[in-house]
Amino acid sequence: MSKKNYRRVKGTRDLLPTDFSKYKYVCDAFSSVAELYGYERVETPAFEYLELLEAKNPSIKDQIYWFVDKGGRKIGLRFDLTVPVARIVAQNPQLPKPIRYYYFSRMWRYEEPQKLRYREFWQFGVELIGTPLIEGDAEVISLAAKCFEKVGLGEIGIYINDRILMENILKEIGIKANALEVFRIIDKIRKAGREELTLELKALKLKDEQIRKIFELVEESGEFSRTSSYILENFKGRQIKARIKALEELFDLLDSYGVGKYLNFDLSIVRGLDYYTSLVFEIYETKNSRKIGSSLCGGGRYDELIGIYAKEKIPATGFAMGIDRIIEALQTKKLLPTEKKLRVLVISDPKNSILLAEKLRKIGIATLVDVNSRTLSKNLSFANKLKIDYVIIYKEREIRENVLRIKDMKSGKEECIDAAKIDQFFKKLLTS
Amino acid sequence: MSKKNYRRVKGTRDLLPTDFSKYKYVCDAFSSVAELYGYERVETPAFEYLELLEAKNPSIKDQIYWFVDKGGRKIGLRFDLTVPVARIVAQNPQLPKPIRYYYFSRMWRYEEPQKLRYREFWQFGVELIGTPLIEGDAEVISLAAKCFEKVGLGEIGIYINDRILMENILKEIGIKANALEVFRIIDKIRKAGREELTLELKALKLKDEQIRKIFELVEESGEFSRTSSYILENFKGRQIKARIKALEELFDLLDSYGVGKYLNFDLSIVRGLDYYTSLVFEIYETKNSRKIGSSLCGGGRYDELIGIYAKEKIPATGFAMGIDRIIEALQTKKLLPTEKKLRVLVISDPKNSILLAEKLRKIGIATLVDVNSRTLSKNLSFANKLKIDYVIIYKEREIRENVLRIKDMKSGKEECIDAAKIDQFFKKLLTS
Repeated sequence: MSKKNYRRVKGTRDLLPTDFSKYKYVCDAFSSVAELYGYERVETPAFEYLELLEAKNPSIKDQIYWFVDKGGRKIGLRFDLTVPVARIVAQNPQLPKPIRYYYFSRMWRYEEPQKLRYREFWQFGVELIGTPLIEGDAEVISLAAKCFEKVGLGEIGIYINDRILMENILKEIGIKANALEVFRIIDKIRKAGREELTLELKALKLKDEQIRKIFELVEESGEFSRTSSYILENFKGRQIKARIKALEELFDLLDSYGVGKYLNFDLSIVRGLDYYTSLVFEIYETKNSRKIGSSLCGGGRYDELIGIYAKEKIPATGFAMGIDRIIEALQTKKLLPTEKKLRVLVISDPKNSILLAEKLRKIGIATLVDVNSRTLSKNLSFANKLKIDYVIIYKEREIRENVLRIKDMKSGKEECIDAAKIDQFFKKLLTS
Repeated sequence: MSKKNYRRVKGTRDLLPTDFSKYKYVCDAFSSVAELYGYERVETPAFEYLELLEAKNPSIKDQIYWFVDKGGRKIGLRFDLTVPVARIVAQNPQLPKPIRYYYFSRMWRYEEPQKLRYREFWQFGVELIGTPLIEGDAEVISLAAKCFEKVGLGEIGIYINDRILMENILKEIGIKANALEVFRIIDKIRKAGREELTLELKALKLKDEQIRKIFELVEESGEFSRTSSYILENFKGRQIKARIKALEELFDLLDSYGVGKYLNFDLSIVRGLDYYTSLVFEIYETKNSRKIGSSLCGGGRYDELIGIYAKEKIPATGFAMGIDRIIEALQTKKLLPTEKKLRVLVISDPKNSILLAEKLRKIGIATLVDVNSRTLSKNLSFANKLKIDYVIIYKEREIRENVLRIKDMKSGKEECIDAAKIDQFFKKLLTS
């Protein structure tokens, strides 16, 4: 057995303390917003029966990590939390609706690892379950926007569309049978080149005129009033009118939430997952740019998903955010907090180290002791490497004189204080 | 495909909000203690290469959930965090030692589910890596004790033993070749009946006299002075003397930490996992009881584990706590916090609901709005089910009179306030 197999599995990461603290910062910030909206946190098992995961998600099937357990049952690691939450709702019909849940959890997908795309990844998301109304969609979209505001990402673009609207538009263009395949190409329209996508659309046997119209749809996307006028002028179906009216109401409510400034009506947004039924949206770091990179958040309405598992159809809406991308964005914009809590290292004999450390811990100061019987200079070098703020030295000389020698590791300054006054000295530091 | 397969996988649980908040309470409490000791939180991938997980743990091999990925590699879900942390330390030789890590994470073991034993379970634990000294063991044991104190479990028993000591004692009794198998039987001595274990020991071809001596060891366990005297009188080896001396130092240091009152020197504690090398300990809800039920915490020194993955041997010590059992203990003793944050439901038209809710959220009050266009009475019934504290009613009449009708859902009392004074009204509630 060679040592080189003792590595991390490809596509996974360790969160060492510095990384972990970033995830915790984002988790705490987003959780606080969700709770202000009355959402409560849930966690579901890492794995579910494969049958359950696959039921409404044929397109993601190949990406599920699955195995056969000793009982011969196929079990798969969850690829999102919407499906497990749908299962919870189906299994707990007694829960009063609407249900407001949020999560900050890990998922797994067997994809080719890329920059910021891992096989094990973290998502924050919310699910609002039990309302078919656009008020529900407005709530979750505004909640997402407030999360970004909370961490300082205040220049986002929210790109909104509606799948029913799109299906009807495609129908009027003459595309019906392979609408889902066309959706998948439209989904890439802001990332890939026009030539490439034209070829892909041609491969689906679309006519030049149809392809031209699809690109026109994307070009006419933007402000709600302009895009909706364009649609109402060019397409006439009853469903199209109804969906535009619903979207108008949505944009209006989002204005009341104070997040109108972020909005785009974008006909290229269709979302990859199969469970979305009507409204869909994605959030990007910037508004109104042609190339929008990768989304930080995606969501929409999934009115048919829970009904697969439950006795009745239960409408629902929600979103998920990719935490890895969000942390990258915060890092680039220097929006991650940098202050660290005060830490102290005590250098003395074992017993005195413990007694001094316990005093400091009682007043809330993180305190380390030397557990290696090291020399003073080795201890100081360790304190330096760990960026410890203060070192307390209490060795032979200090014990004899009944003083504590305190070294400020940043300035290098030392001072001796009365051993009995250790609490006061550090309490003062905590408040300064 | 029948609906009955859309269940949770056997041995797993959902953490709905009420459950989740218990886990969060314990996580926050234990994390705060670990951080006072200078420990920092890490998280590792859910899965590792099977080879890595198995390397030092033949006894747990059958309990690992594993599968073959598309690249043909065997991958297993982690069964603890000590092994992944050992891998991290091996892969990052630059980390200054000692390393102090803690975690609050999920693990998976394919065991037969029992009460409070799940196939997916949560553990809190710490690892102190890079010191061979007893000061390190004292630090982690005291840290564990302080965690229990923090959540109000102040009558615990800490049962301490040493595997090297035990091996030498068994050797003097004449048991050498199958010491590990005898360990596994001793490990059950406080849970199973004496007759049953006698039969098991006889099956290992132990003589009556040897078996009598093993039971005597357990009976002589308890106070350090008594147990150590008994050992020193009955067993003579040099290693035995040395280990007793180390344990004496440990008990002494733990006294300095203020946790001496919890300690037992218990020769029946040997721990199940194979990676422990010398000191081992377990923590139970009570001290000095013959039947101690299931442990809340277990740990010890694992000086040989990291060396399997790393270029050099790196001594380490640590513990893990079973969160499910701890929450059960807290529940039984009514030690879980019950206060909930103030929550408000706004009942109005969509726009006014949003405007009022946003005002309250700005001052930090969790506020829900009606997203189902429900009648007043249905909204009140929903508020009741969710144990909402206050409902704000702002319908036709109130809008006309420019007042908010506020209903205290606990008392049932209603009052009308000036619509402009909503902030003041709720700010006062927050501080009262």
